[in-house]
Amino acid sequence: MKKTAVVALGGNALLRGDEIGTIQQQEKNTYNTCINLINLIKEDYNIVITHGNGPQVGNIMLRNEAGYNSYKIPKMPLDICVADSQGGIGYMIERQMINILREHKIKKNVITVVTQVLVDQDDPAFKNPTKPVGAFYLKEEADLLARVNNFIFKEDPRKRGWRRVVPSPKPIDVLNRKIIKNLVDKGNIVIASGGGGVPVYLGKDKKLYGVEAVIDKDYASALLAEEIGAEAFYILTDVSKVYIKFHKPDQQALDIVTADEAQSYYDNGEFPDGSMGPKILAAIHFVKNGGKETVITESTLLGDHNCGTRIVSSK
Amino acid sequence: MKKTAVVALGGNALLRGDEIGTIQQQEKNTYNTCINLINLIKEDYNIVITHGNGPQVGNIMLRNEAGYNSYKIPKMPLDICVADSQGGIGYMIERQMINILREHKIKKNVITVVTQVLVDQDDPAFKNPTKPVGAFYLKEEADLLARVNNFIFKEDPRKRGWRRVVPSPKPIDVLNRKIIKNLVDKGNIVIASGGGGVPVYLGKDKKLYGVEAVIDKDYASALLAEEIGAEAFYILTDVSKVYIKFHKPDQQALDIVTADEAQSYYDNGEFPDGSMGPKILAAIHFVKNGGKETVITESTLLGDHNCGTRIVSSK
Repeated sequence: MKKTAVVALGGNALLRGDEIGTIQQQEKNTYNTCINLINLIKEDYNIVITHGNGPQVGNIMLRNEAGYNSYKIPKMPLDICVADSQGGIGYMIERQMINILREHKIKKNVITVVTQVLVDQDDPAFKNPTKPVGAFYLKEEADLLARVNNFIFKEDPRKRGWRRVVPSPKPIDVLNRKIIKNLVDKGNIVIASGGGGVPVYLGKDKKLYGVEAVIDKDYASALLAEEIGAEAFYILTDVSKVYIKFHKPDQQALDIVTADEAQSYYDNGEFPDGSMGPKILAAIHFVKNGGKETVITESTLLGDHNCGTRIVSSK
Repeated sequence: MKKTAVVALGGNALLRGDEIGTIQQQEKNTYNTCINLINLIKEDYNIVITHGNGPQVGNIMLRNEAGYNSYKIPKMPLDICVADSQGGIGYMIERQMINILREHKIKKNVITVVTQVLVDQDDPAFKNPTKPVGAFYLKEEADLLARVNNFIFKEDPRKRGWRRVVPSPKPIDVLNRKIIKNLVDKGNIVIASGGGGVPVYLGKDKKLYGVEAVIDKDYASALLAEEIGAEAFYILTDVSKVYIKFHKPDQQALDIVTADEAQSYYDNGEFPDGSMGPKILAAIHFVKNGGKETVITESTLLGDHNCGTRIVSSK
């Protein structure tokens, strides 16, 4: 049996912060990121690709807003927006990956699985929404929307306006994990759990319901990696390594750290909530739950066995 | 080995023409349609569900338009819009189907596969776009958009304005048909080829490209049914049977017809292009390419062995 790697593509793997997000930009970035996955395939890994959807689902939500204002088209809830983004982004990655495999004369199928991820209706996150989504509003607009839709708004820390915040509950289970495992064990490249997965919960009536929430994509990917028994978990981002004392004169790149070491750096406040923090927690989760190593690095460094920061169970 | 049925859900299975398309309406219709599939499962069929996306992808395109006008968000091409709709609709069907299976205490997985469908770049349809998509425009607006985007517009026959038309090329191959067959043969309910599939073509450079086109959903479903060796193909629509001499005093419902009989009715102009025509052609295609029977009927009649119009190879 081959080894399996779950590879989480960061937001800027598909769309960079300085780009407006044309399809040409997205296609090019996707190609340039995915071509590096060939190095993992040549190392005989079977691969599951997960991905963020921040800019894309943000645009889908803004289009919902504009479509309602201009044409009175009913707005879709967040779970549908996330599912839409899984379709569009998944297809884009799938097609580029097929082309890359053909260029390299590698015979593999690529399949995109729309993925629901279970969360707990009683997760404390539902009482304290923190994740900003969608457009910026003036305070008066935000107040109105809050009243009409029962939404919660918070002022943007960078004073760009008021923005809706939604809960970010912990993922409990990736619903189609068995099928995903089966597909990847057969050598297919599987694209799954896009944008952290479509968040659903089990109601008291034992039915599944969609919910207005966003699941952290790295954490959902770590859970999937654990559930399918992957050997390695790659978190691809825009830095080659993780730093402690970041941006200080004595900053230090981390090469190999144990999950316990990473946890104590985290507890010491080395990794901010908005960027490296969630990745470190996801990395630790995977290694503490059966995974061999989590690698946080840039896609271009894949293939270099010493690349990135490696979080391992023991050194 | 169990028998396989491909079941194509028509547009109004998810969203009726008299509804504005709130998520509540779509969820309810989806539930009410899918609950009838239990009858096929009880007859020991493995099931692939395909579905239309007309109203949904229409709304996605309008939102793209509005998002660009209001916020300058780049518009996505039609292939991405179709893929988005596969994600959103697929997820909605998948979740409702899971709930229905649980209510009936049936253990089956449900999986949604984003589906690319190959078309021929030289298909004559590309020279003669016929399929209307997106918003209605004034003639002056249509002329401007035509010039800027290289789009083609035609006047709506019902004089509601000018509307973009795109090609409707023939589907040649459902790209992930082998995986879909494998998944359904194992007893999973597979949701695939939504909206006729995301249209792609193979360029001279042997790469796959997305293309601005819409594939007929019934024809793509017939091709998939053929490719995976399904026994039966159900086309669910809003009439219980197909009629000849429709709306005339001597109209006649068809019970069982051979593919050849159906073809001669078609050749005699019994079935209009915009409604029953494509369904009849899809029905004939399946039966002439190895299928046992195509059934055209309403979802509520599933389970009645004599329901609908049955197109068979020979009587």
